[in-house]
Amino acid sequence: MKTIGVFDSGFGGLTVLRELLPLIPDTRYVYLGDTARLPYGSKSRETIVRYAVSSAHFLADQGAELLVIACNTATALALDEIREAMPIPVIGVVEPGAQAVLAAAKASRAGTGQSKVVVLATAATTQSKAYSRSLSALGLSSIEKACPLLVPLVEEGWLEQPAHKAVTLDVLRIYLLEALEQAPGANILLLGCTHYPLLTPLIETTLKNLHHSMQIIDSAAATANAVAAHLSGSPPRLVDANPECIFYATDSIEKFQRLGSAFLRQPLSEVHLVDLGG
Amino acid sequence: MKTIGVFDSGFGGLTVLRELLPLIPDTRYVYLGDTARLPYGSKSRETIVRYAVSSAHFLADQGAELLVIACNTATALALDEIREAMPIPVIGVVEPGAQAVLAAAKASRAGTGQSKVVVLATAATTQSKAYSRSLSALGLSSIEKACPLLVPLVEEGWLEQPAHKAVTLDVLRIYLLEALEQAPGANILLLGCTHYPLLTPLIETTLKNLHHSMQIIDSAAATANAVAAHLSGSPPRLVDANPECIFYATDSIEKFQRLGSAFLRQPLSEVHLVDLGG
Repeated sequence: MKTIGVFDSGFGGLTVLRELLPLIPDTRYVYLGDTARLPYGSKSRETIVRYAVSSAHFLADQGAELLVIACNTATALALDEIREAMPIPVIGVVEPGAQAVLAAAKASRAGTGQSKVVVLATAATTQSKAYSRSLSALGLSSIEKACPLLVPLVEEGWLEQPAHKAVTLDVLRIYLLEALEQAPGANILLLGCTHYPLLTPLIETTLKNLHHSMQIIDSAAATANAVAAHLSGSPPRLVDANPECIFYATDSIEKFQRLGSAFLRQPLSEVHLVDLGG
Repeated sequence: MKTIGVFDSGFGGLTVLRELLPLIPDTRYVYLGDTARLPYGSKSRETIVRYAVSSAHFLADQGAELLVIACNTATALALDEIREAMPIPVIGVVEPGAQAVLAAAKASRAGTGQSKVVVLATAATTQSKAYSRSLSALGLSSIEKACPLLVPLVEEGWLEQPAHKAVTLDVLRIYLLEALEQAPGANILLLGCTHYPLLTPLIETTLKNLHHSMQIIDSAAATANAVAAHLSGSPPRLVDANPECIFYATDSIEKFQRLGSAFLRQPLSEVHLVDLGG
């Protein structure tokens, strides 16, 4: 049974794991959430690289033969450094996300030439310009918008109770208005942070209120497909086998279990505390 | 010239340093913001203790003869552990804050017996119950309210531009309404996080809109007074001497200089990057 390591600064990467489980079931998954050092999105490249590389080493030590960087910020700022440091294949979320946008653009009325992409992401991810570079290499025009308040709002669960939801809708309206000022005719919205898919219904409401139609893409499913494609050269898989999941977190196990189940949409068994220093 | 170490998880402790500078000028201040590992307020006791103790050791290594824990979360969860680990005096913000509330209660129409205190703080600080315990020991009744979105809103500077300010006012209204439901007649509001004094004008607006009058107390000035009282047994000070400030941060120096000057209300000279592991 193959071991796949899945890494995120916190809980968001569980949305990628959720897509991997049905697609590649005959696998042992080792997930690490670096919750003692999160958030990465507001920190510097040097710090993010240091944290991400030490996390990758931990997962390799747990037997990972393939590493999925299920965190946009770590992928955008540290993918090259992680690949250099690790002797195993490493797949990030930025390239699959960009490919998913390309497929959506090809299928759209605008086509690739007239499509315009808005990428919502953390401050560190937008500063890295990783998404603009990947999209530009595919012939796609894009702008990136930093949305630093969305992760705290998702982690607080301000998504449903009316007064809370109203605040989150106001914040989304502010970010989307600013983004659409820069890219008035944009038709594709890429969610460049693994927390943001939990906001999809509220983003749809906000776009409707702004009378602006956009196709919303996230990179979780696209990343899982990229992992499956990478493994397609491997021996045939036992498709009726059950995946095995082991979770590690660098901070409170209880909080990881509680918040994590919202992202994975199932209870989290067996969460272990790990100290990566610091 | 005495060396005083001032520690915070980030920038908020600069509001305490700002009060110390005019009060105890003939001093060399070494400030550490553990920005690579912030925020502390959403993390577990074990992690907060580990980070705070390693930060305290760093400041002692820089020559600190007295340590000010200018961070409510670190004080509430790790003061005992820091005191045990360090051979120098350690002063936190919780006890001075509680004393400031006592003075306000004594001077109020309600007096200490009828005063009721609302403490706004991070999730970790409220969970520790450090403020309720300190206030209760002084004969004061209180409730604690966790306000996890206030630090991100302050760090984003959503305080002035009208659309941003409207969001922050909505969030404050939600938190204060919930707090006042638990403590309907509360007359004193303690800002139990060093970020919150920057919100004072918006808190005043929110209370006015709720037709609820409260005296707002923060612990920055009270903590500076506690440090001065502790030093009053020391040799007479050269009151016309200028303080010297050296700043250390564990993440981006540029961000520390930019955000820090809003808290200190003056430009920050000489910020050094330090790696505390992790």
